[in-house]
This record gives sequence, structure tokens and C-alpha cells, in this order.
Amino acid sequence: MAPAGAKRNILERLDAGEIVIGDGGFVFALEKRGYVKAGPWTPEAAAEHPEAVRQLHREFLRSGSNVMQTFTFYASDDKLENRGNAQRFTGAQINEAACDLAREVANEGDAMVAGGVSQTPSYLSCKSEAEVKGIFKRQLNVFVKKNVDFMIAEYFEHVEEAEWAVQVLKTSGKPVCASLCIGPDGDLNGVSPGDCAVRLVKAGANIVGINCHFDPMICVKTVKMMKEGVERAGLKAHYMVQPLAYHTPDCNCQGFIDLPEFPFGLEPRILTRWDMHKYAREAFNVGIRFIGGCCGFEPYHIRAVAEELATERGYLPAASVKHGNWGAGLEMHTKPWVRARARRDYWEKLKPASGRPKCPAMSTPDSWGVTKGHADLMQHKEATSLDELKPLFEKAKASH
Amino acid sequence: MAPAGAKRNILERLDAGEIVIGDGGFVFALEKRGYVKAGPWTPEAAAEHPEAVRQLHREFLRSGSNVMQTFTFYASDDKLENRGNAQRFTGAQINEAACDLAREVANEGDAMVAGGVSQTPSYLSCKSEAEVKGIFKRQLNVFVKKNVDFMIAEYFEHVEEAEWAVQVLKTSGKPVCASLCIGPDGDLNGVSPGDCAVRLVKAGANIVGINCHFDPMICVKTVKMMKEGVERAGLKAHYMVQPLAYHTPDCNCQGFIDLPEFPFGLEPRILTRWDMHKYAREAFNVGIRFIGGCCGFEPYHIRAVAEELATERGYLPAASVKHGNWGAGLEMHTKPWVRARARRDYWEKLKPASGRPKCPAMSTPDSWGVTKGHADLMQHKEATSLDELKPLFEKAKASH
Amino acid sequence: MAPAGAKRNILERLDAGEIVIGDGGFVFALEKRGYVKAGPWTPEAAAEHPEAVRQLHREFLRSGSNVMQTFTFYASDDKLENRGNAQRFTGAQINEAACDLAREVANEGDAMVAGGVSQTPSYLSCKSEAEVKGIFKRQLNVFVKKNVDFMIAEYFEHVEEAEWAVQVLKTSGKPVCASLCIGPDGDLNGVSPGDCAVRLVKAGANIVGINCHFDPMICVKTVKMMKEGVERAGLKAHYMVQPLAYHTPDCNCQGFIDLPEFPFGLEPRILTRWDMHKYAREAFNVGIRFIGGCCGFEPYHIRAVAEELATERGYLPAASVKHGNWGAGLEMHTKPWVRARARRDYWEKLKPASGRPKCPAMSTPDSWGVTKGHADLMQHKEATSLDELKPLFEKAKASH
Amino acid sequence: MAPAGAKRNILERLDAGEIVIGDGGFVFALEKRGYVKAGPWTPEAAAEHPEAVRQLHREFLRSGSNVMQTFTFYASDDKLENRGNAQRFTGAQINEAACDLAREVANEGDAMVAGGVSQTPSYLSCKSEAEVKGIFKRQLNVFVKKNVDFMIAEYFEHVEEAEWAVQVLKTSGKPVCASLCIGPDGDLNGVSPGDCAVRLVKAGANIVGINCHFDPMICVKTVKMMKEGVERAGLKAHYMVQPLAYHTPDCNCQGFIDLPEFPFGLEPRILTRWDMHKYAREAFNVGIRFIGGCCGFEPYHIRAVAEELATERGYLPAASVKHGNWGAGLEMHTKPWVRARARRDYWEKLKPASGRPKCPAMSTPDSWGVTKGHADLMQHKEATSLDELKPLFEKAKASH
Repeated sequence: MAPAGAKRNILERLDAGEIVIGDGGFVFALEKRGYVKAGPWTPEAAAEHPEAVRQLHREFLRSGSNVMQTFTFYASDDKLENRGNAQRFTGAQINEAACDLAREVANEGDAMVAGGVSQTPSYLSCKSEAEVKGIFKRQLNVFVKKNVDFMIAEYFEHVEEAEWAVQVLKTSGKPVCASLCIGPDGDLNGVSPGDCAVRLVKAGANIVGINCHFDPMICVKTVKMMKEGVERAGLKAHYMVQPLAYHTPDCNCQGFIDLPEFPFGLEPRILTRWDMHKYAREAFNVGIRFIGGCCGFEPYHIRAVAEELATERGYLPAASVKHGNWGAGLEMHTKPWVRARARRDYWEKLKPASGRPKCPAMSTPDSWGVTKGHADLMQHKEATSLDELKPLFEKAKASH
Repeated sequence: MAPAGAKRNILERLDAGEIVIGDGGFVFALEKRGYVKAGPWTPEAAAEHPEAVRQLHREFLRSGSNVMQTFTFYASDDKLENRGNAQRFTGAQINEAACDLAREVANEGDAMVAGGVSQTPSYLSCKSEAEVKGIFKRQLNVFVKKNVDFMIAEYFEHVEEAEWAVQVLKTSGKPVCASLCIGPDGDLNGVSPGDCAVRLVKAGANIVGINCHFDPMICVKTVKMMKEGVERAGLKAHYMVQPLAYHTPDCNCQGFIDLPEFPFGLEPRILTRWDMHKYAREAFNVGIRFIGGCCGFEPYHIRAVAEELATERGYLPAASVKHGNWGAGLEMHTKPWVRARARRDYWEKLKPASGRPKCPAMSTPDSWGVTKGHADLMQHKEATSLDELKPLFEKAKASH
Repeated sequence: MAPAGAKRNILERLDAGEIVIGDGGFVFALEKRGYVKAGPWTPEAAAEHPEAVRQLHREFLRSGSNVMQTFTFYASDDKLENRGNAQRFTGAQINEAACDLAREVANEGDAMVAGGVSQTPSYLSCKSEAEVKGIFKRQLNVFVKKNVDFMIAEYFEHVEEAEWAVQVLKTSGKPVCASLCIGPDGDLNGVSPGDCAVRLVKAGANIVGINCHFDPMICVKTVKMMKEGVERAGLKAHYMVQPLAYHTPDCNCQGFIDLPEFPFGLEPRILTRWDMHKYAREAFNVGIRFIGGCCGFEPYHIRAVAEELATERGYLPAASVKHGNWGAGLEMHTKPWVRARARRDYWEKLKPASGRPKCPAMSTPDSWGVTKGHADLMQHKEATSLDELKPLFEKAKASH
Repeated sequence: MAPAGAKRNILERLDAGEIVIGDGGFVFALEKRGYVKAGPWTPEAAAEHPEAVRQLHREFLRSGSNVMQTFTFYASDDKLENRGNAQRFTGAQINEAACDLAREVANEGDAMVAGGVSQTPSYLSCKSEAEVKGIFKRQLNVFVKKNVDFMIAEYFEHVEEAEWAVQVLKTSGKPVCASLCIGPDGDLNGVSPGDCAVRLVKAGANIVGINCHFDPMICVKTVKMMKEGVERAGLKAHYMVQPLAYHTPDCNCQGFIDLPEFPFGLEPRILTRWDMHKYAREAFNVGIRFIGGCCGFEPYHIRAVAEELATERGYLPAASVKHGNWGAGLEMHTKPWVRARARRDYWEKLKPASGRPKCPAMSTPDSWGVTKGHADLMQHKEATSLDELKPLFEKAKASH
């Protein structure tokens, strides 16, 4: 069990050298449970089906999470309007409901509440800095009113927009995390991870890192590059990582979005709990102390992270009562050859088969020739009609 | 939405030619959510964490399930004692709590409650017919008291034990389903699927079929063999199938238990929703009308079954409001090449990559040379010490 | 080295319980060397480029072959005319040149010369028994004139045509082998391997077996079925097997021809020398004593067969002077971790990677819906125009 | 057919912008044919079995090669002594026999003779520059006596040794090629491909490039880096590439030697002829004009290179008479669905299956922790005892 009276804030914990475990990705988990629609990916379920969102928070808490992120991904006004998915609820209602749910469950254990903002359609359609900041400000008002413990600006593909978000969030006086969804090749304008991190720290972020778009090992590697950049610049920061729970050895700079399997054929890529042990250890070794997950992470993935780091944290998560260490629960299986699998060595070495002999191991990403540096083209991506965009892409391809 | 006033019982529905959609496997889904321990696989969560079990029922209901199976798998007294997992709750408490949860959620929509019994340690350790039937009878008492709508005897590897279960359940006067966890090679004593089905129908089962242990296409094929057997014998029955949501092209007669990946490395084998469309259509074409899922099935898998059969059933499940037909929701994605995936043709043809270039496509099952017909050896499988069993297995191997 | 004075004929050897090692497939090996054209696959190189054919014979002899098959595959008059590939040479010239080359090299070691006939266009286009037999008779005249040591009728998909061939070849008074290119599902009219074997033995064949179309393990299994059929019928025969050197786990009844990779993309399927050790042992264990190869077999594959059976035969092949037992030659490699591979255990357990992460492990055979029993349709396959045939295939598919 | 009167030397051809096609790797091809022993890889077959070497030269000539490399790989005196493989023949006899065979076949067509030297045990065991150069000088004497057309120094892992070789070979007055067996990471001391190329040009090489150790696309990429280095330095050179015919996406800096499959399990990695078309086009596009092959290249691979570049060269190779353009020969196949494969589109898009569902796509290279820069350790690799080396490797690993 977690230490009593532990409700210190994130910077106190990180400054003290503690490990903070994040939660998993809500949009993907709730899509599979029937409460989020793939495509728009908006979080109206916080208002529509609070019991489903509450339950998922609780499962992550039991699995060891110290952070309940408000389920407010893509909940900016411009995104919600754009998509027409939340007609029964206003943006404020959704954001407020999300805060209440996160707080309710955080209070059941050793967890903090983090309010979150993410990239906006306004930025991508070239709105002004003032307009984009206005969007963030409106969301922030809810988080301040609900008194979340700290803020996360996450899932940004352009460091510039993330800087704007950080600048807005800093006005709250709360600790601010800034997390980009980029890989080792840098942001979509080609700014390197190291340079991105320096800019975010200078903008005021206390914690910088990576979430989504790539698999754990690639994300850890990218945060390592960020850390090296920050240290080279003589700055100081804490580091966070919240990767996919999907293997992505074949991705280009835009990550898993461009894989042909996104988002409805990713199953074969799901990480096992043992992959998560390797991830948690590697993240820890690199010096990252805020370690969580994004799309694809289910509660048992977070539990595996917490189990790998149980010695360092000094306790196991609640849900470990339903899990034997390295498969030890199998000692009670009825078949002896399954009981023989109740050991670390077995699971650490296993190379799991796909069961799909007619499928390949790797895909060719599918991005119509859009690559790093095509910022102009990317800014049109909010257009709703495919036909409108085709000529632009043909032009882009031709110019390669 | 489902037709109004639909609470007719399962035989009425099947006799009228309707499709009845089952739910998914609770032990695997709740293991990932942190409420069930792999190895013993016992269902004490019904009493310990009712909110988690209720939420999963509700997700399956929203996904189109017409059957809420009581979460009573492996909840026979002998199993619970044996495992020591439910010390805080008696077997009766667990079974009763499971009935209440199933009923509560069934009443929220067009679903029936099915009480369930499964194979017992008593049978495997060679207890008498009277003793084994006593075990079933004690569970049945709860189901009768709670007035479930019908009974399922499922997950039997030996047709003899399933016959005994059916004979007990028939005394309730409720409709009885009998479902074996076998493949085309028959039960562990080598009785063919066709002969098994005939014996079960003669024992009194109204609905016969297959659940667990093999992937959907193998299970459908096995039910087809059962149906042919029943028809050859001049008997009549309805048919059910509730397979794994894992691809198992490489299994031997004991199914996925023997795969090296069982139970903690099965991720790469998880079926996509599009695999489920093929499964649902194939099951329907073969003449199966009670179509559900077992281990690995998440709510979105059941939703896919309901979506494939929406025309035949006349309506979509509630959760389809969060899912576009064949990926149509992607029309609102921000990247145009992802929008281009919003079509049936794309997902039907996709061969999803595993993202694991150092892993193979198929495994070699791992059963220490125990194969069909080793009934004598299998009866020792309840022994708790591996060392005790080793000599037996060496002998078994030597005799091959 | 081979025993001195060993030139006894094949039946003497087999009756004495000796192992006779065959050669590999000439058309595929010489296609890669630039002397045979894929598609027609005719053997005019015997006359055009005798040095290339002689060299390949010699390599197989050095590798341990006891049989030099005349390079007369598809050298029947009707096939050669049909294809127009051998305009500079008559069929008789090609057949005679092939006999001379085989004899020349056989005399350099312990090898016999086997004349060969194979399936004819005449049979497939429904010519009469008399006409088809006339074709075989014309080839046989050359083999008798050149005094080959025995005859092989090989690569027949229809047992009826093979019976006719055997009946013709028997008139020579020489030992006759009959080898079908079928798998466990039987010939293209659905006659089982056991029944095929019985018919061939009754027609006069001394040795029956399988060549081409399937991988070694499938071919050995099929010969085992033939042997069981012959023994069940109370008959006696010797057995032969000359499989592909390609893995074909995904083939249907027509074998590797229907694989999408045939014939120019089969490289990833090529067996290693260690696969050949397993094949040779398995063939020996099943009771087959004439063990060779067909398409894909290169000299080193035959050498591996001879090395696996060196103890039983009492000597190693000449080419083993250039090969260490189970990789022992690597003891002289410059890098120590390569030297560490100089052992049987290493190579026996190795699961070789394909180096092709974007390719699958198995294919879907491509036969336009033509399956076992479509004999009527298959008889049109000699038609040269694709367009003519399309409607027939559409009809065949529709009737499924 | 080749242009008449074409026997101009290599620099005349390259200066005129012509394409020069190399041959394939003799040691691997002849190992499979039974004339070379894997491990020592020495070329005594030139003297022992001239007919086999002559035949292979002839096959490459027919396939389009303009270069007959003398079969003198690893034929330096120190290597031959070290290995004890050629006791019946002196080093001079082997080198002379190899020259005679290459000349005999070169005279049958439009080909030049290239004498070759490769890396020496003397360098690896830290002999002096004078000693190493003495080794090259002794081989060169034979090449000068036999009047080869030009010289190739190839298969060097350390650019320093290659420089020494070039300096010796230049004394002959003949054109000199210098080819390293390195990848994009540079030589074993970490010198980049660009810097290696500059040093080789400065040492006097007319043509620089890459052979062996990596697959075609990786080798072409490395030569591109060499070319960029040479151009950046304001120098001029011609470029050559002679890669493996094995896919090596998983190699580290020492190439295929370190793959677990080397050298007896590489079959699944063999390139198809269609892969060779892509290679030839890419090499041409990058500006490489001497395009050939190394280990794994069989005659049909070189033919595919010649066919891809037939338009640029103005003619097809002789062996193309036995090969239809892009599979056109299949138009004469007996089965219509195979005839349907007689087209470029089919073969270009095919992703060939491995037929090995229990094997992975990629391996983990196996080099005991020896990586770039471990030059000191590598210099011990000539030691014959594994035991002697173990401690060194343990130390190397510990220091990582």
C-alpha cells in the first residue's frame, strides 16, 4: 500500500527523487468499451457516461497510478464544435465533469489530479497566437475553478503550439508538464527533440517529455535526447514519458497514425506486460521519473510498470493482489506444463507468436508523401473534404 | 435499439429463428482490469468489487449482448476451497452476488440472465458421479433461488462430465445449454464432436456448442461437426458458439492452454473487430444462432458481431453510436490519409503487421507429450506439486 | 569413398537393404545457371550446352548420388513440338545426348543411369490411351538403345497416365519406378495415395513414390500413405521420394505450382542443409530407401542427405572433403563467435530469419478455384490463350 | 549480343559512361557445388577442379558479366599456410591456375580479367606494413606475369590495410579498384565511408566502392556516402558495388558474419531476381557504373542485373535467351493461373512468403559485444583456440 498522508504535489515528489506513475490512454481504452468514437476521439463520455470513466480511473488507481488525468483530451471548444459530437453537453460541462471524476477517484488513493490540454484545430488552421492561446485559456479556467493539482500540455506535434500552451498554463501558478507526440526525428517542422525540450523549459515547463505516437523504447530514447539537450543548455527539468502500448518499429516521423493498421488493426502490436517491465526499467535507468502510458495502455500495463518499480517505490499497487510476481499465479494452474511457466525466466525470454502466418511483421507507413517539414501542407489537415486535399497531396508528392 | 417488450426466453427466440448474441469472457477481461487472478481464475470479484463486474456487464449489454452470464466461472465449492482465493466470501455469497449483478444489468436492456457451471476439480480427481453431481447441484440451488432465465454448462473437456452437469441442470426445468471447450479432434478421451453433441442432446441439452480454447473459425467448424452429428442421429437441437478472441492456428487438441504464450503473452493473437465480422458471418451461415465470445473478447468484439448481423437482427447495438460502420468514424480524422481508411474494403483486406520482427508467426504447443486419450494422466492434474508429477509425465513421454 | 565394384542394379541394392541416393532437380538448377527456360522447362540444354549438364551431373555424383537421371524431363515429342524450344535439335537428339551425358558421369563413380518419362500434353488434352502410350514408347526406344540401367516414370498428377507409362516401360524388361507429384490428398481425380500406389504396383512398378510439388516432410508422409496402402493390399514394393527443396506448409492439392511465388519468388522457402538432415532421417525411418530430390535441390542438399545417412551407407560422399560434419569447418573461421557455431546443436536448433520483415510466413495458393476433382477443367489447361479459359474458370468458381 | 571489338579496358569503359557488370561470389557458389570449404573459404579448387571453376565463370559470362575475377580470394600465402587446405598445390599454382581459367573464359566474350587481393591474416595479427605489403606483392607478381587487365583490392574491413594494398597494386601500372566490406557505420575502426573513400582515392585507387557483408540496398547507400565524401573533397573517382545476395536488415557494423544464420542458414534471405532489378536500378541512379555481386549471387542474379540495365547497355546477355522479360516465359506454362503471372506488375509487387511460420523475420546479431572501434580485440581474432579468447571477450563485454 502507498505511504499514508502522501498527497504532496508532483514537484515535491520528483524533487525528492520519487517515481510518479501516470495512467493509461483513455480514448483508446474507452473506444473499446463503447464510449468514445474513433475519428473525432472527443471525451463527451465524461458527461454522458460518468460511471464508465470513473471505473477506468479506478482501475488505473488500483494499478498504481499516482496521476488521474482529467478526461479532457481534444476537449477544447474549437475541437468540440468542429466535430459536433457533444451536442448534448457544452465544452465547459464536459471539462467540469472530467475534473470531478478525476478528483473523486484520486481521493480514494495516493493520486494527484492533472488537468490537460492538447493540440488544437485552431493552430493547424493557422489561427493567430492570441486566438490559440484563448482556446487554452478557456479550458484552463475550468481547471483552475476545479483546482486540479497540476497541468499537462500534451500531444503536440509542433513545439511552437506547445510553447503557447505552456505560457498560458503557467499563469495558473500550478506546476506544468509539456509533452510532445514526436520521435527521434523531432517535431513536424524538424526541430530536434533536444531543441524542443530547451524551448519548452524556457517557456516555463517544469517537466518535459513525450507521449503517444511511438512505442515505449522509441519514446524513452526521444526523452533521453530531450534530457541531453536540456543538460547541454545548462538548464534543469524533470522528465516524463507516456508512450503507446503498441510496437512501432516501422513508423516514420508521424508515428502510428500513418501505419496502415491505425486505429482498427493494431491488435497484433499490443505490448505484453513483460514488454512493460523492460520499458519501466529502461525509462528509470535513463532518469525519467514520471512514467505512464498513452493509447493502448490498459490497467494491467500500468500495473506491470508499478510491479517492475516496486522495489524503488517501496510498495506494490493494490491490483497486484490479483497478480503473481512474474506469473507466479500460474503455480495454481491445473495443468503442470502451465505451472512450469510461473517464473521470470520463462516470460522474459518468450518471443510471442502472432498466430497470423499470412501477415507480415512490419508495415509500410502510409502518409501520402507528407514528411517532416511539410508544415504548410499539414496546416490544411483540418479540411473536412478529402477531395479538396487530393490536389495538394499530389503536388506534394510531385515535388519530392 | 432493441425491440420493445422483448423479454422472451432463449428457446422462444431461437425457435423463432432469431439471433441471440452472447457476451465476452469475464475472467480474462477482468484480469486485465485488475480484479481476477490468472492461474486460479476464480470469480470472487462479484462479491469483492461489484462495481467492476457491473460495469463490464453493462459494456457487453451496450455492445449488443442478449445474455448476461452470471460471473460464476470456476465458482463451484470444490474449486473455491481448493484455491483459497475467496476467503472473505463463501461460495454461495459469490454465486448470489453474481446473479444479482447479472439481473440488475439485464433489466437495463434486452437481455436474459444465464446461470453457469463449468468443469470441476472433483471430476478430474476421479470423484464419483454422485459427488460431482452434488457439486453442480449446490451451485444450481443458487441459480434457482435467484431465478435465472436459463442455464449454461460450459468449459468441459470431457463429455461425460458435461452430461452429468446437464442431467443436474435439467432438474430445474429451465432451458439448458451444453458447451464443450474442445476442437475438431474431439474431447480429451477422443470422443468426436458429433458424438459429443449427440450424447449431450440425449442428456437433455436444448442448445449445444463450443466455447473457449480455440479461435472463432476453428470453433465454428467444430460446432458444424456437432450439428452434422446431431442431424445424422435424427435429433434436433439449437447451436451456440463462444470462441476465444485469439488466433490459434497452431494449437493441438487442448487448445490455447498449451501455447507457450498462454496466458500472459497472447496479445499478438488478439482478433481485430474485422476478424469478428468474418466470424459472425461464418457462424450465421453455418446455422448457429447463439453467437458470443469467451476469453479475449472485449466489448468492441461483441459490438462487431452485432454490427455484422445488424441487418438480420433489425437493429444496431447501443454502443454503435460510438462506432462508424466499417470505420466510417474516420471520416472525421484530421489526417486525410487516415480519412481514406473510412471504408469496408480497406479493413477487410488489411493484413495487420505484428510490429515484432524478431517473433515468429506460429508456436509449438507445449504439453509435455500429453495428448488425446491420456485421460488417466489428466486425472492427476489437480496435484499441486510439480515434482510429484514429473515422473508421470516422463513415463507418458516414454510410452509414445 | 564408395565400395569397389559396386555397379549392381537398383533392385539388387534395394533388395539388399541398401540406401540409394538420387540426384536433384535439373530444370530448376539449370534455370538459375542460365540453360533452361522457366515456363516450357524443356531440356534442350543436353544437346545445346552439354558441358553445363555434365558439370551438374558431376556435382551430384560428388555429393553422393547413386542415380544419374537422364536430363529428359518434358522431352516427349508432343511437349517439345508444342513449345518450339528445341528447334535446332530433334527430340531424339536431345534424349540421346542426355543419355550419353548421364552415362559418362555415372561411369566416374558408383552411379546408375535412369531413363525418365513424365506427364504429357497428350494425356491432358484427352488423347487416347494408344496415342499417349505411343509417346512414351518413342522415348523408351532411345533409353533401350542407350541401355540405361532402369526407368523412372515421374511427375504424374493423374495415376491413370502413370499406369500407362509403367505398362510401356515394363516392356523394356528393366526395373521401373513410378513417382507421382501428389500430396496426402491424392491425385487430381481424388484417388488416395494408398490406392494410387496399389494401382502402380499392379501395373508393374517395382518402386513407387513421390516427387516434386511438396516439401520433404509432406512427400515423406505421402509415401508413408502409399506404403500403408500397398501393405494393406498384401503387395510388395520398394519406395522412393524426391521432394522439393522448398518449404510448402501452405499448399493445396496441386502443390507449389499454385503458390503465388512459383517459380520466381521461391527463394525464402529454400531448405537449409540442416532441414535436409531431418528429411533424410525421416525418410529412412519410414522405410524409404531410394531418397533423392527434385526442384530446388542443389548439390549441397544431396550432400547433406548423404552425410546424414553416412553411417548406414558406410561412407561419406566425395564432396564432404569440402564440408565439415555439422559445420565443423567453421572451426577455422577468423571470428571466434563464428567458430562457436561449429557444432550440431547450434544448427539443429536454429530458426533462420527471413530478413524480410514486410513479407508474411505463408501465402494463399492461387488456383482460380480449381481443386481436386476438376479433371474436366484441367484437361483444357494446355490451351494457350488465357482469354479462352477465363469463362471456364468463372464457371468453375461459380459452381462452388 | 555485345558490341564487336569491345575489349577496351575498364577505365576506357567507365570514362565513356558505360556500365560494367561484375560477376558473383565464387566461394559461396562453389561451396554449394561441393568445391570450397566454408570456414577457411580458400580457393584451391582453381587447381583441384578447374572444370567447376571454368563452368561458373562461363555461367556469369553468359549472364552478362564483363569482369572475370580470378578465383584468388583468400589466396595469399599467409592465409593458405595458416589453413592447410591446399597442401597439394602451392599458392603460386593456385593463383596461376585461377588467372588461366579467368582468361580462357573472358576470351569467349566481352569480358576483362581482374586479379584480386583481399584482407590478410598478417594485418590482423599486427604484422608490419612491410610484411603485409610483401604478401600483396607476391600475389601481384602472378597477376603481372599472367597479364590480367586490372586489379581489385576487395573485402577489407580496415581502410588502412586497403590503402597498403592499393599502394602495392598501383606499382603494376594497371587500373586499381578498392572495395571495402563495410556498411554505413564505416570501417572497424569507425572511419566513415566518405573518409575511407577519400583515403583510398588518395592512395591511388581509380575505382572505389563496397563489396560483401551487407545487402544490395545497404551497400548502394554506403557507396553513395563514399561518393559524397570524394566529391566533398574535390576528388574524382569511379564507383563500384558488389553486395551480398542476402537481405540483411538486421545487421550491425560487421555485417552478415555476425548473423546467427551465417553461413549455413542464410537461405531464407536469398534475394529474388526481382529484388535484383531494384538493386541494379538504384545503383545506376546513384551513379555507380561497375555493378556486380558477391556472396550469394548466382548466375541468374547477375542476369537480372543485366536485364534491368539492358536498355542502357544496348543488349541483353546471352543467357536471356533462356529467360523471358519479367517472367514472360510463363506464358507457355500449362496452368492458366501461372500464365497469368507472366507480367512485370505481378513480380514487382509480390511479397514472397518464407514458408517458415515458426521462424522470425529478423535476427539478433551475435558478436559477443565486439563493436566498432574494438580494433585491439579484433587483432586477436586469428587465434585458433576459442578458450584463449573467452576472457578477452568477457573483458570487452564488461567494459561496455
